[in-house]
Amino acid sequence: MNFASDNLAGALPEVMDAVVAAGKGAQAAYGGDEWTKRMDKHLSEVFEREVAVFLVGTGSAANALALSMLAPPIGRIFVHPGAHAQTDECNAPEFFTGGAKLHPVAGEHGKIKADDLEAAIKSVGKDPHWAQPAAMSVTQVNEAGTVYTVDELSALGDVAKRHKLGFHLDGARFANALAAKNASPAEMSWKAGVDILSFGGTKNGCLALEAVVLFDKARAEEMGYRRMRGGHLFSKMRFFSAQMEAYLKGDLWLRTARHSNAMAGRLAEGLVKTPGIEILHAVDANEIFLTLPVKMADGLEAAGVRFYRWTEGPRPMIRLVASFETTQAEVDAVLALARRFS
Amino acid sequence: MNFASDNLAGALPEVMDAVVAAGKGAQAAYGGDEWTKRMDKHLSEVFEREVAVFLVGTGSAANALALSMLAPPIGRIFVHPGAHAQTDECNAPEFFTGGAKLHPVAGEHGKIKADDLEAAIKSVGKDPHWAQPAAMSVTQVNEAGTVYTVDELSALGDVAKRHKLGFHLDGARFANALAAKNASPAEMSWKAGVDILSFGGTKNGCLALEAVVLFDKARAEEMGYRRMRGGHLFSKMRFFSAQMEAYLKGDLWLRTARHSNAMAGRLAEGLVKTPGIEILHAVDANEIFLTLPVKMADGLEAAGVRFYRWTEGPRPMIRLVASFETTQAEVDAVLALARRFS
Amino acid sequence: MNFASDNLAGALPEVMDAVVAAGKGAQAAYGGDEWTKRMDKHLSEVFEREVAVFLVGTGSAANALALSMLAPPIGRIFVHPGAHAQTDECNAPEFFTGGAKLHPVAGEHGKIKADDLEAAIKSVGKDPHWAQPAAMSVTQVNEAGTVYTVDELSALGDVAKRHKLGFHLDGARFANALAAKNASPAEMSWKAGVDILSFGGTKNGCLALEAVVLFDKARAEEMGYRRMRGGHLFSKMRFFSAQMEAYLKGDLWLRTARHSNAMAGRLAEGLVKTPGIEILHAVDANEIFLTLPVKMADGLEAAGVRFYRWTEGPRPMIRLVASFETTQAEVDAVLALARRFS
Amino acid sequence: MNFASDNLAGALPEVMDAVVAAGKGAQAAYGGDEWTKRMDKHLSEVFEREVAVFLVGTGSAANALALSMLAPPIGRIFVHPGAHAQTDECNAPEFFTGGAKLHPVAGEHGKIKADDLEAAIKSVGKDPHWAQPAAMSVTQVNEAGTVYTVDELSALGDVAKRHKLGFHLDGARFANALAAKNASPAEMSWKAGVDILSFGGTKNGCLALEAVVLFDKARAEEMGYRRMRGGHLFSKMRFFSAQMEAYLKGDLWLRTARHSNAMAGRLAEGLVKTPGIEILHAVDANEIFLTLPVKMADGLEAAGVRFYRWTEGPRPMIRLVASFETTQAEVDAVLALARRFS
Repeated sequence: MNFASDNLAGALPEVMDAVVAAGKGAQAAYGGDEWTKRMDKHLSEVFEREVAVFLVGTGSAANALALSMLAPPIGRIFVHPGAHAQTDECNAPEFFTGGAKLHPVAGEHGKIKADDLEAAIKSVGKDPHWAQPAAMSVTQVNEAGTVYTVDELSALGDVAKRHKLGFHLDGARFANALAAKNASPAEMSWKAGVDILSFGGTKNGCLALEAVVLFDKARAEEMGYRRMRGGHLFSKMRFFSAQMEAYLKGDLWLRTARHSNAMAGRLAEGLVKTPGIEILHAVDANEIFLTLPVKMADGLEAAGVRFYRWTEGPRPMIRLVASFETTQAEVDAVLALARRFS
Repeated sequence: MNFASDNLAGALPEVMDAVVAAGKGAQAAYGGDEWTKRMDKHLSEVFEREVAVFLVGTGSAANALALSMLAPPIGRIFVHPGAHAQTDECNAPEFFTGGAKLHPVAGEHGKIKADDLEAAIKSVGKDPHWAQPAAMSVTQVNEAGTVYTVDELSALGDVAKRHKLGFHLDGARFANALAAKNASPAEMSWKAGVDILSFGGTKNGCLALEAVVLFDKARAEEMGYRRMRGGHLFSKMRFFSAQMEAYLKGDLWLRTARHSNAMAGRLAEGLVKTPGIEILHAVDANEIFLTLPVKMADGLEAAGVRFYRWTEGPRPMIRLVASFETTQAEVDAVLALARRFS
Repeated sequence: MNFASDNLAGALPEVMDAVVAAGKGAQAAYGGDEWTKRMDKHLSEVFEREVAVFLVGTGSAANALALSMLAPPIGRIFVHPGAHAQTDECNAPEFFTGGAKLHPVAGEHGKIKADDLEAAIKSVGKDPHWAQPAAMSVTQVNEAGTVYTVDELSALGDVAKRHKLGFHLDGARFANALAAKNASPAEMSWKAGVDILSFGGTKNGCLALEAVVLFDKARAEEMGYRRMRGGHLFSKMRFFSAQMEAYLKGDLWLRTARHSNAMAGRLAEGLVKTPGIEILHAVDANEIFLTLPVKMADGLEAAGVRFYRWTEGPRPMIRLVASFETTQAEVDAVLALARRFS
Repeated sequence: MNFASDNLAGALPEVMDAVVAAGKGAQAAYGGDEWTKRMDKHLSEVFEREVAVFLVGTGSAANALALSMLAPPIGRIFVHPGAHAQTDECNAPEFFTGGAKLHPVAGEHGKIKADDLEAAIKSVGKDPHWAQPAAMSVTQVNEAGTVYTVDELSALGDVAKRHKLGFHLDGARFANALAAKNASPAEMSWKAGVDILSFGGTKNGCLALEAVVLFDKARAEEMGYRRMRGGHLFSKMRFFSAQMEAYLKGDLWLRTARHSNAMAGRLAEGLVKTPGIEILHAVDANEIFLTLPVKMADGLEAAGVRFYRWTEGPRPMIRLVASFETTQAEVDAVLALARRFS
């Protein structure tokens, strides 16, 4: 039973069928194919605005490319200390930006507060010794599994705009965030001030599909060259664009995200009643962070439940993630096991 | 009729089936899956030696990562002036190496000669003003469609070894090269002195599959971090490793390459007899470079034959490429059209 | 009265005389001159060991070049959160290393503790998502004005060696540190495990003189190319090497540092008795960090005392720095003013 | 007798005196001093236009910083194949631009022709595989010792403007170029379309003085951060700004350049009449490139004439350079020696 991560799951059948269908016959390379031609239009509809879309194969690539568009090498990028870009991308942001500095702004439950962001910006004066505020990168769903409300995001966007920062949203689980807050894609991105979005598909059932979505089409040309320079321009692009088409069709992406969120919600509801378990953050989407007795953790693992341990000791901190493949039966089985080991 | 490039072709059915089969159920992410675990072993058998393999999605990524392992930022990388890394990768080699300089060494029919390489190396003295010789990158099948013999490669490898250069082989069409010379993978790589190989799959029937093959396993750890830093570590790696497994199984890759080469050979044989056509380089593998009357070029295009024009004018230079999808009937149709417009 | 920084001071007469003397007649460029030829030998004597020395014009250049020798782009460099390299070099370390990440390790009074360093190193597992521990950079005199003892430095060096980290010492005020602890240059550098030292001259009376000192001569060649690539190879090197010769001659550098330290010590002794003043860190060398009533700060400034304010408010934090030019009369004048405004 | 290079010469007495004078008392660091405050004004007068000036210590730093302002990492910079930036700066341009590619455009006597530049630009289509035309860097006096006329420069500037390229002029010997053509600084820079000028002082009698001159002041702020990030912001800036003040005062720089040019002219005039010598390029400024019998070259060297040999063999190619220190007596002595060995 996989609760380790949503990227351990397989592929949505609809997405896989689309890949298979795309495999026949000749198609122009490097995005000249039929699927890619339609993609900007599809995503422009999703976002209720003209957008430019660049597919890549990993979230780290999407994030690093987005940041390279927003921060010069002399720049400073404000992030949460737990941000994936800061902790888990092996210096990809520094690489793609040519050496910009990530500047952590702490906040509870994985969220940066607008006031703290503003204070951090103001702490950096106009002096050549100090890398200058250039951008902010916010994760949604964030690394504590909580989801910024549209108002919270907009407050950050206002600060960014006031100080002329670029606003990047790392939406590796963007669908789960939308589902969590019942917000529209537009509300949770450009209407809140987002300039560039990393739009995730892999964790939500695609094979390898992340999109860099630019809300300012004027910068699309530069982005195309940057993607190529990073080695991220697929020659047989159709195999990626076809995933996107299936992913969006009939709101598959949102239905899938709602399912994952619901499974995590059901699981959290049960866990909170289980003696010995402490849930650490609001379970807004499909991730649960909790501490539990080590005996329970060991027992769950021994019984075949897969998850990541963040810390060791008598009360380890673990994360449980639900995916499109997670079933109600699996959730109930985990709950039964937890009760047994509590 | 696609003769534009082998990367306009679809996917080999065996490869696609493997991808579909990999799509079910949970698998460890980032290469912890069953397919990836077997991959090093499979490729070690292919190369008759322990190798370390790193999958990425594009040839440019494979090349740039390989070069970043061989050339420091103060280094100089010798390449043919027509090398893909030099002309078609939008500064990816400079990006990944931190600013190493590509140093062109001219040669007929897309090949660098060992003597010319040595002269180029010797032209660079030990002076801090001059970026130092660090690596050489050779393309096999090269950009003129010709294939280095094992002896030619080995001669280059000897020069590289004598001057302590790293030796990178850009094998985007490595299978076609092997098929062309009936050489073993070992003979055409590490036995000839190659340190790192970009092992191509996409052009020969995969969806997106390029492997960086390290013949020195001691450097594998660093490479893993560099791949991640470039945003090239797929979370659902199984979808790529499964392609590799199918691609290698029963020598599918070599059979496919032999087919492409045979189709190009048949086409070249007919074209050479067609009045008005001049073939520019030996057709060693699956690519034909030729000049022809513009009327013939226009006629072929109008009749639905797709190809790239390298130059314009009354006698444009064009390239015709055969792929695993190319049929004898298509070849014969092109020949008939060529004769009609000659 | 300058107490703002030692880099506001002019030049030591002996150093200036040497520059003037170097200005006549032809000398080989780029370090082929007489002074530079002698320099490695002079510094090898100072350090009781063969060293390789590379002069540059700024401390940031020295630091960034040193770090580029110790940390690859996938690396992590442990620093104090207040380290000059982290806070005041406008991303130069990230630039020269190709995007390595500075990892702050907090500690009181500007010092990193060996245990905290070790814990930080151990917190980073062998996972491709995590930039790997590569180097540590320690400032001596540090940014709180305190000086690591030889034992403290050695303890850090032991941790570095155990974990195969490169050890860089930012010695912009190395002379002041030696004077403070009465240690030998060898004890406070390579004997404590330091691999590369930024050896400062500018703040202690030179015009522009910082040396990157490599204790492993085998790496000197690479460093020469890296200096040139950074645009830091002076053509008329003699004007810098001549400064070094005069700076070292008859221990001028140590005598000057002792003077600065003594002036700061006298000043601190008086300030500590002045009501309203709180000294924040031990005054080990030539810098004093203190808080004082804003009225006193304003009064001092109005009376012509120059210093930097770190914070504002009713009790600003300020820094007072003594230099080779500071006189006892100036110190006593400041003390009298402070008492007047207290 | 130094004819090896103008950077083997010492310092102009006026410049040295200014450095000495600047050495007394406290001055604000990092350019807050009296000399630096006046510098922009002085150079604005020289150039008959508001300029922003950034001093650095080497020509390579000036060039690389300038190019980093004009070319993004996905860019292409057109240069002469012999350009110092291409051949002698150990990848500094690639480093500072984040990996832009230098694209050589050949031309006789060290000059790029406007038509050839335009053809090179047009050869690069709008395709993500191809690094995009971004800037051109022209050397004046160029590497063959010839000087572009104002018309030639303007023709290049017109092409640059038409194709939206940034125009960098590497003026390591800018004074010699002005003296050669009797042109005004304005005519030979911004009026001809130059965006950023590397304004050299070192070769013409300063200790270490190169200025990056921006004709668009709006970009000055970014440049200040880039200079710091490169480690090129001197703390005791006064020692550099004071050089500039003395260098400009009473047109010292132009008088000195005229002297060097006159000495080279006299030398060339004599050499051209010496049997066995072939002068290769017009001697526009202070450099002479020639071939001569190896016996003569050896004889000159044995007699104490210092020069660089570009090639070996029976008729080596050598360069003779006159500097501010070159005397008529030295010139006549070389001529006598040449005749003796002819």
